Amino acid sequence: MTKLRTPRFFGYYPGTVALVTARHQDDRNVMSAGWHTALSVDPPLYGVLIGRERATHPLVTASGRFGVNFLNASHARVVQGAGVLSLADGADKFETFGLREDADETLVLEAAYLTFVCDVADIVTTGDHDLFVGRVRDVVYDPRAYDEQFLLRDEAPVYLGRGTYVKLDTRAERVTFAPESFVKVTER
Amino acid sequence: MTKLRTPRFFGYYPGTVALVTARHQDDRNVMSAGWHTALSVDPPLYGVLIGRERATHPLVTASGRFGVNFLNASHARVVQGAGVLSLADGADKFETFGLREDADETLVLEAAYLTFVCDVADIVTTGDHDLFVGRVRDVVYDPRAYDEQFLLRDEAPVYLGRGTYVKLDTRAERVTFAPESFVKVTER
Repeated sequence: MTKLRTPRFFGYYPGTVALVTARHQDDRNVMSAGWHTALSVDPPLYGVLIGRERATHPLVTASGRFGVNFLNASHARVVQGAGVLSLADGADKFETFGLREDADETLVLEAAYLTFVCDVADIVTTGDHDLFVGRVRDVVYDPRAYDEQFLLRDEAPVYLGRGTYVKLDTRAERVTFAPESFVKVTER
Repeated sequence: MTKLRTPRFFGYYPGTVALVTARHQDDRNVMSAGWHTALSVDPPLYGVLIGRERATHPLVTASGRFGVNFLNASHARVVQGAGVLSLADGADKFETFGLREDADETLVLEAAYLTFVCDVADIVTTGDHDLFVGRVRDVVYDPRAYDEQFLLRDEAPVYLGRGTYVKLDTRAERVTFAPESFVKVTER
């Protein structure tokens, strides 16, 4: 295989894009975050990267809370648009995209199939972004989006970069590898 | 929509699983990492979560280097198996799965369509894992896996949890949202 090297840092896709919600006093916002990951099982920690210039940054810092929302493929345009528009330009993205907050918990988007509601446990500066380490306080999900094994069965919008998404049909062409199918050397 | 709450921290999928490579003196290893994310563009930083009990952990710590490799859907079994088997049990996973290292750079898997070769810039403890912050020193890729816009056109194995993968056909049902399709409030 002939490979190339490049100084350009690209290719951190495909992946899911989360919608990060934040609210402080009378201000609320939602932004797209393509960079996010689980950080720990016990305690449950989830991390999102937020640029220091983003309008969401001071809302999360001041309130000490944020939501991480995942929406299905029918909402791909919202997922992308929440990264293009900015509260700093006066956009109420909830209104623009018809997003509604859950009646019980403002950080939960009604349209999300899954939301992690987090308290900020730590903020770690990583180059031109800050990693918000969130202690997961609540996991809110739509049971219709998951099968009996808690595997997603909804269609997910997978991001390829440059505003481009592909619909992932989670029910098609599944393949499962059982742990016992891998022979352990010590058991030979 | 009727949602449920759960104390169980789940649902951080779907996503791609990376193969983390490490080598120190005569020891080498490769492990699956479902938790990883870009952390910064400038400087280019990429992060992977590694449990402190994993055999890869001391190799990365001692050598100060690691690779983050992405393999296409034809290698899904390897991607899963490198997380099930352990060097601690005596498994040479390179041999078991027929993985070969690049002739020029041992941290690059020949089968990978993309590899970030990283120097360890920082190690941040996050609960039961450590986040290895990698300064991306080299980006090595297979040009056949990407289109002219640098979007992936290879088939990616997307992880759903519980050893289950779905093949993502990156050429099917693509939708692109141009930035100008979102009206900015200030431009009205």
